[in-house]
Amino acid sequence: MLPTKVSIFEVGARDGLQNEVPVTTADKLTLITQLGDAGVKRIEAGSFVSPKWVPQMADSDAVLQQLKRQAGVVYSALTPNLKGFELALAARADEVAIFGAASESFSQKNINCSIDESIERFIPLMEAAKKHNIPVRGYVSCVLGCPYEGDIAVSEVARVSEILYKMGCYEISLGDTIGVGTLNKARQMVEAVAKVVPVDKLALHFHDTYGQALANILACLETGVSVFDVSVAGLGGCPYAKGASGNLATEDLVYMLHGMGIDTGIDLAKLALAGDTISRVLGRANGSKVANAIRT
Amino acid sequence: MLPTKVSIFEVGARDGLQNEVPVTTADKLTLITQLGDAGVKRIEAGSFVSPKWVPQMADSDAVLQQLKRQAGVVYSALTPNLKGFELALAARADEVAIFGAASESFSQKNINCSIDESIERFIPLMEAAKKHNIPVRGYVSCVLGCPYEGDIAVSEVARVSEILYKMGCYEISLGDTIGVGTLNKARQMVEAVAKVVPVDKLALHFHDTYGQALANILACLETGVSVFDVSVAGLGGCPYAKGASGNLATEDLVYMLHGMGIDTGIDLAKLALAGDTISRVLGRANGSKVANAIRT
Repeated sequence: MLPTKVSIFEVGARDGLQNEVPVTTADKLTLITQLGDAGVKRIEAGSFVSPKWVPQMADSDAVLQQLKRQAGVVYSALTPNLKGFELALAARADEVAIFGAASESFSQKNINCSIDESIERFIPLMEAAKKHNIPVRGYVSCVLGCPYEGDIAVSEVARVSEILYKMGCYEISLGDTIGVGTLNKARQMVEAVAKVVPVDKLALHFHDTYGQALANILACLETGVSVFDVSVAGLGGCPYAKGASGNLATEDLVYMLHGMGIDTGIDLAKLALAGDTISRVLGRANGSKVANAIRT
Repeated sequence: MLPTKVSIFEVGARDGLQNEVPVTTADKLTLITQLGDAGVKRIEAGSFVSPKWVPQMADSDAVLQQLKRQAGVVYSALTPNLKGFELALAARADEVAIFGAASESFSQKNINCSIDESIERFIPLMEAAKKHNIPVRGYVSCVLGCPYEGDIAVSEVARVSEILYKMGCYEISLGDTIGVGTLNKARQMVEAVAKVVPVDKLALHFHDTYGQALANILACLETGVSVFDVSVAGLGGCPYAKGASGNLATEDLVYMLHGMGIDTGIDLAKLALAGDTISRVLGRANGSKVANAIRT
């Protein structure tokens, strides 16, 4: 049973731009405004991690403070800890996101602690978010493979997802961080997680590094998932494979869904305009095949 | 019911290279040899159209004459007429291909005659092929849309396919020439054609201009089709949209199929080597996401 509606969670301005050359605050504001104009209702607008690690996101405070809020649009921010949460709150983020890995090696190499330790550290943030009525989204990375240890057991993905959900995350976004997954495994993983987290609380964040993201989403639509994290113009490369693709382009997913008669609320031409505009700013080719096809 | 085996029909050396800058005969021979080394069993090696129209294929005779034939590999050539067939025969092509459009406007604009006239002109070729026991493949273009008239009725695709099949083509390759199709329409089109041509005599030739080819193939696998035309490294752009993608990259399809447990007989690493080699010769980025991901 396919969904009749899909919710697009646009990550281009954060997950995308953090893997591109830095752009100005004004360029980010233009991007976010154009996304809103196109009908995107959920926009990840920035990240409150240390600018030492992610200089591209150093102006997230200014972005959230200055953006012209559009009716019905939720602006979110990635927050690694309580301090980040407080900054996001002060900048009036509508929601925040925390993250855990499904791979022990990935957790150790990236943040130098175990999966469980990394999640425990979010407890003060969760308490503060609850107090301020700020919804928290939970990202789980490496759900279909890890750059360090290869295959990841679906049971581990389900375990981490359940912890984040029980901690109070309103939605769990399952990330194929290196885009290595294929569709049978993707579907099995979602089915396993859906046993411990209601399927309508799940989102899929599939990278297109191996060109499989759209086929994987198609295969998973039947499980009942109807929220997908994508990046306009395919913004954001793959930090684990130089020259490889990262996020799936929003335009390409929207094109498929509209072709299936599934509503996204998005105006594809306006969406492509947003992607073209930021691609020009970055001086890079637009990573959306649809955008390249309809522009000419 | 999914197939357990899929046959890859590799079109990179013809449909791909005819839309790239010209390369030497030696480079084509290297490509074809590397494809054979990778386990590809069906290779479109050239085209006997006028070099005035397609200068990239002017050496097809030399390619077919000089290639080191590998056991079990079938080398084919596109032949627009009896003269082309005779040249292909002299060059020892194992099989040839003819073509018709499912769009009247496309036929008129491209070859200045109606669909039916264009197919009638192949009668002498079919007779000669029968006499020489050369199998003939039939391409149908614009099966999911036409650059001039937009939507194409599935009944027209079925009609043209049936004519080519009844004329003696052993297989009908259904081409989404502009890559505009989405999956429901693709499946409906295949189901309509399968009513008049046995499904095991059908192949799909889906371009990736809108990034949909892999998802469309996935959706069509359930219809029973198990032959797919693809192009290593995604060789070949889209002549109808500058800067847009053309053929689906063989590597990306093989990666998906192997992930599904479907046998292709192809060694993905060796296939990616073939694509990397020709991409370097062309001085272009490799159009396969898998190739870009596994190389690094």
